Amino acid sequence: MAELRENPICGKWVIIATERAARPHDFQTSRDEPEGGFCPFCEGNEARTPPEIDAVRPLDTEPNSPGWKVRVVENKFPALRPNGVPTAHGSWHQHRIQGVGAHEVIIETPEHVVSPPDMPTEDFALVFRTYRGRLRALGEDDRLAYVMVFKNVGKRAGASLEHSHSQVVAVPVMPKQVAEEISRCERYYSYRSRCLFCDILEEELEQGERVVMESANFAVLSPFASSFPFEMWVVPKFHSGRFQDVTDQQCAEAAAVLQEAIARLELCLGNPPYNYAVHGAARAGVDAYHWHIELIPRVTQVAGFEWGTGFYINPMEPEKATRHLREVSQEELSERLAVPCSERAGE
Amino acid sequence: MAELRENPICGKWVIIATERAARPHDFQTSRDEPEGGFCPFCEGNEARTPPEIDAVRPLDTEPNSPGWKVRVVENKFPALRPNGVPTAHGSWHQHRIQGVGAHEVIIETPEHVVSPPDMPTEDFALVFRTYRGRLRALGEDDRLAYVMVFKNVGKRAGASLEHSHSQVVAVPVMPKQVAEEISRCERYYSYRSRCLFCDILEEELEQGERVVMESANFAVLSPFASSFPFEMWVVPKFHSGRFQDVTDQQCAEAAAVLQEAIARLELCLGNPPYNYAVHGAARAGVDAYHWHIELIPRVTQVAGFEWGTGFYINPMEPEKATRHLREVSQEELSERLAVPCSERAGE
Repeated sequence: MAELRENPICGKWVIIATERAARPHDFQTSRDEPEGGFCPFCEGNEARTPPEIDAVRPLDTEPNSPGWKVRVVENKFPALRPNGVPTAHGSWHQHRIQGVGAHEVIIETPEHVVSPPDMPTEDFALVFRTYRGRLRALGEDDRLAYVMVFKNVGKRAGASLEHSHSQVVAVPVMPKQVAEEISRCERYYSYRSRCLFCDILEEELEQGERVVMESANFAVLSPFASSFPFEMWVVPKFHSGRFQDVTDQQCAEAAAVLQEAIARLELCLGNPPYNYAVHGAARAGVDAYHWHIELIPRVTQVAGFEWGTGFYINPMEPEKATRHLREVSQEELSERLAVPCSERAGE
Repeated sequence: MAELRENPICGKWVIIATERAARPHDFQTSRDEPEGGFCPFCEGNEARTPPEIDAVRPLDTEPNSPGWKVRVVENKFPALRPNGVPTAHGSWHQHRIQGVGAHEVIIETPEHVVSPPDMPTEDFALVFRTYRGRLRALGEDDRLAYVMVFKNVGKRAGASLEHSHSQVVAVPVMPKQVAEEISRCERYYSYRSRCLFCDILEEELEQGERVVMESANFAVLSPFASSFPFEMWVVPKFHSGRFQDVTDQQCAEAAAVLQEAIARLELCLGNPPYNYAVHGAARAGVDAYHWHIELIPRVTQVAGFEWGTGFYINPMEPEKATRHLREVSQEELSERLAVPCSERAGE
């Protein structure tokens, strides 16, 4: 029988539907890659992107020239721009704020590869350090209320270019959904003097049935109230509210763990489109919140009921998804990844 | 320059992005229809659906036989079933409730047509009366907290069958998003002694720039803070909290207005996939809330930023969308519809 489950972080319920027997095969979805052709993100084409905001490159190379490992540029069609001061105006029911913010693209690699498991782990760790750098830099801008780093892979997941890249959007008002999560964590913290995520993680690691994999300092869970089939969260085992406080070593470990989680997903579902997003505290919530990465394969259609109510129907039990994701063999993983993280951690 | 706008109903902000010049053509999206072949919803195939729960049919015909105008059956793969009593259980962070509820399909017509503008208006009015009937019947079940009627058209909008149909889902807990909307309307009501929707409608009808069309008792608006390009709301001009209180005459008028709104959308964007949902009060909010229908064309991809923050980026200004939707000619409408509603109302 189907059951409803409450997401303890945001308080939303989901329906875990079990009427349709679901197997990984049922969720195979093509990435529907954007058209190939000229790629402005490949090394050598630096002049075809907006100018570099930041980069990981040797000191003896010039900005906007080859030789880089990671590049940050403004989005060519930015939703928001870092000019001016955001002030609210408008009539009684029509609140407006100028579109002050930031919309950047992080080009993750000079090579034309599609997904993080295609990169050497040490290179993907540089991408994580770049996330940290952008979150720090934009986080210092008083005009901005929240900064989110996220990634779209595949046209169906919103990507318009194939070359592996992430995006950063900074907004001048706090997103209601993020504010609600942080506020719930703060209420929990004030009641229990503990972090809600830390408590959940403790329970999950004890029960084990939703733990996809672990490293020394990170766990990958199928959330108890997953909204989507094969959804995964990468959660630090140590308490930390904001991603921008990670150390270099934690960056490297988290990057390796996320690479393996994505590789498992890709092997299980045949390279589906997916999104991931780094969730962290804003100015508020640094003590009570707990940063983590939410990885969402885009293998089901969100329909009228979900838009209308915010109530998701997930046709795949998270415990079953966990088993499938765990069953991916070490051989397959080794072929996909240079050094599977779970091997290193001696799982 | 882009701007942020606050949705006065739910308090969420959206980014109205204007960097990419957007014209209706840019949003043309195929419905990607489900495969054809045998259709269990066509007249004569009644035995191939779960048994009838309700129907509009002559008194001298038998249930589950031909002759009907509208049929209501259980979904073949129901997300929830109307058996048992929903009780919460589970550990500290793992709240569960049995999947008690309802998941029904409203087969709107015995003919194999795809979208409401294909139906005679008097037939589509019967569909609206059926919505009312199901909302009333399920609304009386004390085990259920909320009932939503919605429609998916096109595979990309979540439809798995082509034949025009709506769905009803009833859930044993209040969806957080609906509760939040109702609660905001109640707070507004207690402050202003007026309905938030009535006030918004008054302002919109005065300003006019987001009014797509009107009939005597209904208006079709592009919401000020539309999350999606060409989003429309059908709003009664009279105050009424719940759809289930509509009269037969209002059903007929609302059905005709929605048909024309859909026809305008289809003519403007070339038959896009879309969803609509009937939003109304629950047990709470009957005085303060205001029922309406939200119509969402599915012509953009929701990506990592939107999932991560609940903050939408809409690349089409609602005022511009309104102009395009208005510009659809009476000739085109007359070809698509038996009697365009705006003609009848003498627009």
